[in-house]
Amino acid sequence: MSRFVEELGDALPPGAVVTDPDVLETYRYDRTEWVTPGTPVAAAFPTTTEQVATAVRIAAAHRVPIVPRGAGSSLCGGSSAIDGCLVLCLERMDRVLEVDAVDQQAVLEPGVLNADVSVATADVGLWYPPDPASKTYCSIGGNVATNAGGLCCVKYGVTRDHVLGLQVVMADGTVIETGRRTIKGVAGLDLTQLLIGSEGTLGIVTKVRVRLTPLPDGASTMVAVFPTLGAAGVAVADLVASGLQLSLLELVDRTTTVAVDDWRNMGLDRDAAAMLLAQSDSPEPLRATEVARAAEICEKAGATYAAATDDPIESEMLLEARRLAIPALERLGDTLLDDVAVPRSRIPHLVARTEQIAAHRDVTIGTFGHAGDGNMHPTIVLPRGDEDAAVRGRAAFDDILVAALDLGGTITGEHGIGVVKQPFLEREVGSGNLAVQRSIKRALDPHDLLNPGKWL
Amino acid sequence: MSRFVEELGDALPPGAVVTDPDVLETYRYDRTEWVTPGTPVAAAFPTTTEQVATAVRIAAAHRVPIVPRGAGSSLCGGSSAIDGCLVLCLERMDRVLEVDAVDQQAVLEPGVLNADVSVATADVGLWYPPDPASKTYCSIGGNVATNAGGLCCVKYGVTRDHVLGLQVVMADGTVIETGRRTIKGVAGLDLTQLLIGSEGTLGIVTKVRVRLTPLPDGASTMVAVFPTLGAAGVAVADLVASGLQLSLLELVDRTTTVAVDDWRNMGLDRDAAAMLLAQSDSPEPLRATEVARAAEICEKAGATYAAATDDPIESEMLLEARRLAIPALERLGDTLLDDVAVPRSRIPHLVARTEQIAAHRDVTIGTFGHAGDGNMHPTIVLPRGDEDAAVRGRAAFDDILVAALDLGGTITGEHGIGVVKQPFLEREVGSGNLAVQRSIKRALDPHDLLNPGKWL
Repeated sequence: MSRFVEELGDALPPGAVVTDPDVLETYRYDRTEWVTPGTPVAAAFPTTTEQVATAVRIAAAHRVPIVPRGAGSSLCGGSSAIDGCLVLCLERMDRVLEVDAVDQQAVLEPGVLNADVSVATADVGLWYPPDPASKTYCSIGGNVATNAGGLCCVKYGVTRDHVLGLQVVMADGTVIETGRRTIKGVAGLDLTQLLIGSEGTLGIVTKVRVRLTPLPDGASTMVAVFPTLGAAGVAVADLVASGLQLSLLELVDRTTTVAVDDWRNMGLDRDAAAMLLAQSDSPEPLRATEVARAAEICEKAGATYAAATDDPIESEMLLEARRLAIPALERLGDTLLDDVAVPRSRIPHLVARTEQIAAHRDVTIGTFGHAGDGNMHPTIVLPRGDEDAAVRGRAAFDDILVAALDLGGTITGEHGIGVVKQPFLEREVGSGNLAVQRSIKRALDPHDLLNPGKWL
Repeated sequence: MSRFVEELGDALPPGAVVTDPDVLETYRYDRTEWVTPGTPVAAAFPTTTEQVATAVRIAAAHRVPIVPRGAGSSLCGGSSAIDGCLVLCLERMDRVLEVDAVDQQAVLEPGVLNADVSVATADVGLWYPPDPASKTYCSIGGNVATNAGGLCCVKYGVTRDHVLGLQVVMADGTVIETGRRTIKGVAGLDLTQLLIGSEGTLGIVTKVRVRLTPLPDGASTMVAVFPTLGAAGVAVADLVASGLQLSLLELVDRTTTVAVDDWRNMGLDRDAAAMLLAQSDSPEPLRATEVARAAEICEKAGATYAAATDDPIESEMLLEARRLAIPALERLGDTLLDDVAVPRSRIPHLVARTEQIAAHRDVTIGTFGHAGDGNMHPTIVLPRGDEDAAVRGRAAFDDILVAALDLGGTITGEHGIGVVKQPFLEREVGSGNLAVQRSIKRALDPHDLLNPGKWL
């Protein structure tokens, strides 16, 4: 056992440091299965900020790199281990520390699962809006690291818009607090905003103060199906331009719909090229008006069917079809899940380009995502064990990134750069911007100990 | 004439560099009249990004500090000159470069006045929400530098929530682009968010891409008057807890109301301790319901009068009373305008503490502001030329900052630190946080050339 591991084990409580190779094997991987991670020397499971700081200080002294890990649900290799690293697992820091009903905020440890926040705050009539499709198994710490989005972000905004402050262990082990308890504030540089989306490369988040929102008293849902992806894309652009305050606007293409229906037999329209789901959670009677208007807009754009429902069970079934998109496609083979965003008027172009890429690279691509934000997840499905297909799939993955950039978009809407999109980062942001990013990284983590090899 | 000025004059077009002391006198000051600025060696008036970069490079070579200046409307000394500096005036860069009606965004030069953005986009049915009370004379560049707020921010959020990307000249003269054209994105560190609110200390903004919002088709307005500030504070807390989507929630105290009414003879209730103004711009019929409900909540909290109106002229008159608060108080003497924010439940405590401070320091304080955000502007009014009162006023100003911190708040909600709040910054954010801020500043501006002496 290395001096580092020995020292770490002595400093943390019994059971907090693990070196058992079978356990480490679990913590090497995140949800990005096509990334081959390295082998950590240990995993630590702190339960307090002080333990995190201690672990960071000891790792820093030994120049051992640290891979912070929330729930391990990264889809871009953001929490994949590297050789010789310490995997710092925040999963045991999973307490809701405070719910302030009056000022509508909560303080969370980073390991709290996203969906559990709203569970903890429901009895005071509040919720935490950002809702990744993975909300039942992704953690708030990871959400902060990636500025996670979700389904309702088209109305409510992303993680960035709901985090008021952080407690963070910096690369030298110092603990800082950022942000405030107030809605507004501009006292110095906004380190909260800098840290959100930094993928664990600038500091390790140990507490998160989030803003809560009064729970809407219900929602109306619309579903529309389209004979072509192009018509669905036009409907999205028209819905955005309409000014309707939709709280959800999701697109699911035929490949994905069939995969979900094959699995769960939901009676979905298997012939439609695309399905659009929309919701409004405005107060009654506005929400009924809004989804009815959305259905009209879809029909005008060419939908062969569009209907609204106030029935919560029917609505939930439709949303479930969307949430099952990833696991349903994963049943069919190895998946390369992309996460690109384009200006919303370019959704039709993006889906058309994706279809061309699928044909050109001879791969299956299921496309779904947050159409209302212009953020889509074209997902390449590859026959398991087919090396040749894997090569074509990787090429298609890169083609999709290029297409997004060509269309004035971004290579990642909500998952982050991690390891899988590094080669394209400079192409998106430019060399000058990247140089500034690197200056900041060097200033805050001069020995490159925090999640090295990710993002930059 | 110094070598620096000579070189700068040669490099920029004729008329772009000014050394006339009479002109410089104008550009020494911002709107913070109680700060005594230094004397610049020159002022530059670039009209292109390349000219800004040239000026920065030449200033950097000569180690001449740069004070960037938008419209000079800072209320915290943020654009006050320092001795020997170059004042870099962005006021001639005032073009709206692009309005994209489809993707609902615009590209602006930094000198565009806030109110002119919505004028430029109104004919395509869009507007730019953040609306400082100074919107007719403050510029977008300054809004970015201070993360400016405004009246409608209680619903729409602040500058940070509406800026998609920037073009920035860094301290070494390199030009970078930050952000994106898409609604979501997490490609690397979010330099846009870091730069917003950095008060011109990290870079000089030369272009701003803002997100636009569909124009609401009208608004309903409520006015309520209260016999005590405490009752008004309770009403604010109850309105926030109600979940009503108010697009404005402003408080004006008696001192301010009387000052406005003395000036403009608006028939305001001069006996009420406080007036609350609220608006809803939700689609009909929701907005009428919302302001009616707001009036009920105010009555329940003790309002002696509460009424709603859909009449745009009456609404505009009420809002004008609020917007005139600062100039009306300025008529009465020298003003020290504060800008504190507290958790919204603490508004009653803040106004009570402010009254105590006014009595204790024997000064007049007019209080008004964005109650719905917890962001208030207690404004100390001092008899002109009374040195003794000025000393008591400064003490009251500091007392208010301490009160805000005691109440879990911040020393600045939307104006920034500038020079007037530096002594309190560390007290708010902590030494560890400030050290991180300083590391970033050193990394990006190693010679401390950009707005030195401000913020840090």
